[in-house]
Amino acid sequence: MSETITLRDAKSIIENQIEELAKRNKEPEWMTRIRYNALEAFERAPHRDPVISEEELLHFIAKPEIEGLPEKVESLDDLPPEMKALLDRLGINEVEQKYIAGLAVQTDTGVIYNQFLQEWAKKGLIVLPTEEAVRKYPDIVKEHFLRLFRADESKLTAYHTAVWNGGIFLYVREGLKVPFPLHLFFLIQESALAQAPHIIIIAEKNSEFHLIEGCTAPILVRHSLHLDMTEAYLQDGARAQLTVLQNWPEYVHTRPMTRAKIGKGARFINTTVGLGSGKSNVANPKYWVDENGYVELNGILLGQKDWYVDLGGEMYLQGKGAAGINASKAVIMNESRVITRGVIKAEAPKTKGHISCDALLMSDRAVMETYPGLVSRVDDAELSHEAAIGKIREEELFYLMSRGLSEEKATQLIVRGFLEPMLKDIPMEFLVEIRRIIELAVSGGM
Amino acid sequence: MSETITLRDAKSIIENQIEELAKRNKEPEWMTRIRYNALEAFERAPHRDPVISEEELLHFIAKPEIEGLPEKVESLDDLPPEMKALLDRLGINEVEQKYIAGLAVQTDTGVIYNQFLQEWAKKGLIVLPTEEAVRKYPDIVKEHFLRLFRADESKLTAYHTAVWNGGIFLYVREGLKVPFPLHLFFLIQESALAQAPHIIIIAEKNSEFHLIEGCTAPILVRHSLHLDMTEAYLQDGARAQLTVLQNWPEYVHTRPMTRAKIGKGARFINTTVGLGSGKSNVANPKYWVDENGYVELNGILLGQKDWYVDLGGEMYLQGKGAAGINASKAVIMNESRVITRGVIKAEAPKTKGHISCDALLMSDRAVMETYPGLVSRVDDAELSHEAAIGKIREEELFYLMSRGLSEEKATQLIVRGFLEPMLKDIPMEFLVEIRRIIELAVSGGM
Repeated sequence: MSETITLRDAKSIIENQIEELAKRNKEPEWMTRIRYNALEAFERAPHRDPVISEEELLHFIAKPEIEGLPEKVESLDDLPPEMKALLDRLGINEVEQKYIAGLAVQTDTGVIYNQFLQEWAKKGLIVLPTEEAVRKYPDIVKEHFLRLFRADESKLTAYHTAVWNGGIFLYVREGLKVPFPLHLFFLIQESALAQAPHIIIIAEKNSEFHLIEGCTAPILVRHSLHLDMTEAYLQDGARAQLTVLQNWPEYVHTRPMTRAKIGKGARFINTTVGLGSGKSNVANPKYWVDENGYVELNGILLGQKDWYVDLGGEMYLQGKGAAGINASKAVIMNESRVITRGVIKAEAPKTKGHISCDALLMSDRAVMETYPGLVSRVDDAELSHEAAIGKIREEELFYLMSRGLSEEKATQLIVRGFLEPMLKDIPMEFLVEIRRIIELAVSGGM
Repeated sequence: MSETITLRDAKSIIENQIEELAKRNKEPEWMTRIRYNALEAFERAPHRDPVISEEELLHFIAKPEIEGLPEKVESLDDLPPEMKALLDRLGINEVEQKYIAGLAVQTDTGVIYNQFLQEWAKKGLIVLPTEEAVRKYPDIVKEHFLRLFRADESKLTAYHTAVWNGGIFLYVREGLKVPFPLHLFFLIQESALAQAPHIIIIAEKNSEFHLIEGCTAPILVRHSLHLDMTEAYLQDGARAQLTVLQNWPEYVHTRPMTRAKIGKGARFINTTVGLGSGKSNVANPKYWVDENGYVELNGILLGQKDWYVDLGGEMYLQGKGAAGINASKAVIMNESRVITRGVIKAEAPKTKGHISCDALLMSDRAVMETYPGLVSRVDDAELSHEAAIGKIREEELFYLMSRGLSEEKATQLIVRGFLEPMLKDIPMEFLVEIRRIIELAVSGGM
């Protein structure tokens, strides 16, 4: 970092970005006001990131340092070859061939989505760039935008709120069951703006869907900070799955912010597959669960190189009979550091919660830490947790090797067997790629 | 609190106490210098207590508010009847009858111990009031006093170090196996001085002993803060047990500070039976474990009334093959709040650690929180934890009641069955009393 950026400098940069965004998005005044309020909050909000210092944050704001990319991407063919190759590796083309379907590509100025989705809109499935939803459905957006967060919680929430751009607005009408997974991919491209997509998910009563976010950032980017925010509202009886595939390159810091309100009898399964967590990945999703509602947070965490991965997760079991599970499996290599710290708070009778954390440490320079928390405020909740950190058992390895497998193959097989139970809800076409990435990582080939 | 006590006021009160202690104990100059250094540290040291504010702490220093007690207690017969009754309830007389033995009663000016121990001294068992040890064995005390703590860690460690008085110096010669449990009882009596006993335990190679501390504070005391500090040094192959029976009345805040260095192949079992934890009881013992050493922290925690009980425990497995277990069982009633937060850090190969926490919540106004932590810095450690918070299962209760037990008796039986496995190392004469206290508590009779 060559020059010092002051808080005042950063504020004035953000102010310019707000003006630009307001103009570019033809944004209604109420939204721009939210941005300016967040800008004020940015100044006084605390900054408590375990990795990014305030100085660095200001630097990221001033100098995103990224190289250019095509301004507009209308179809996958417009993507630069490197990026297309990356999507190929993740099996995107296969997905498209299968569904010709729910694919939306997030660039930092908006969302590209295809004809297919416009037909489903008639049945009650609305997928729009959030900016467009702001103009088209102002009342619904107003009712849900920044209701699960406060801009002044931290400098990062304030910054996101001031400059959010891109993101998906997903609305699923009462009773509609979407039969195919919806795919959403983030590509960090441009430049002057932060990558700060804002995702709003509204699932009406008894609706069902599965949204898959594949976060891939091509090698074109030099430095970056990814600050997505997801607000999910599941009405009574809705069943939603949100699967996030993270494969960030190692110089991106990501701070995914996810919160969900889960209505009576609703069910939310949130799976994070952290194949490439970037330089650092810090997340503490929160879930409020109403009567007989259910939430599941599954974390598959791969620690490589000098990555810092920190996955929290707070579940508030507020309605009678609400239940939550926070389960993670981590494979930790090289000099990476992986931390899990789920918390479940039982605040209503007959609630149940379980936290589990299993980790395989593959290197003695790697560090694994787990700090689960259970809080019970009622006398008839059932809360439990369990964790195990260890290495691959030598007997297991020797057994497989005695059957003719090389040590590398045996190790890959054991790691795969360790992680596989967590991947139960991942569509097969992703699973193939995920397995390949894990195998490569375990063999030191990434 | 009627008047405001400033930090300056508190310092000058502590200064007077240091002068008094130095004179009364005919203290060598080096020890008095330690006190004065701690007084300086007190001013700048942080104060981070979850219950006692800095204002309250200063108030405790200025106004212990306790009523008078006999100046000298030479034998149990000199005790006021209330206190004697309390000791009777804890089975002390039986203990004495059995061993006529290792009984030491801590008053706030020193330790009374009997003839019996003087005979064992010849075999290499030294039990002395810490003040006396300072004069008699200055080199040994200098080498071990405040080596596992720093006075400036917090206002409480600084305050303790400045005004420590009383406490036991326990030295067990190489290879000596003490065949009877040593009993040490704290009685908060006097007044102008804080109750801040300093306990030094030195177990030479391959020695063995079991020290039982019974902390009982008679009803005579109106307000108080108990700040004991224990430093235990277990040399290679030593096997030591430290059992602490806490039965503080509900207006005493206790902050037991315990740390131990556990040598190669040594074994330290530290059991805390918190029957009466006082208004609040906050402890975070620390253990450093060398090659093939073993440490066990067992917490039996009874939460009653509006008590605040917060038991941590940090284990550093520093030598190859070191192992640690942190196990707690809590029964939580009324409006009490019980927190457990053990941490095990594996810093050497082939280390093993396990944390478990089980809690029975008996009231829906009570709160249980558990935050275990596991940190592994090596690839071949085995760390695990498990926890379960719940209430008594109705089926279990109904089954016992169908066999003719009243609900109260059935509940008592279940709670006893729940806690019993943790009480395996408690001598029988204490066990009888402990069971009675638990039964009374569960029936709301305390």
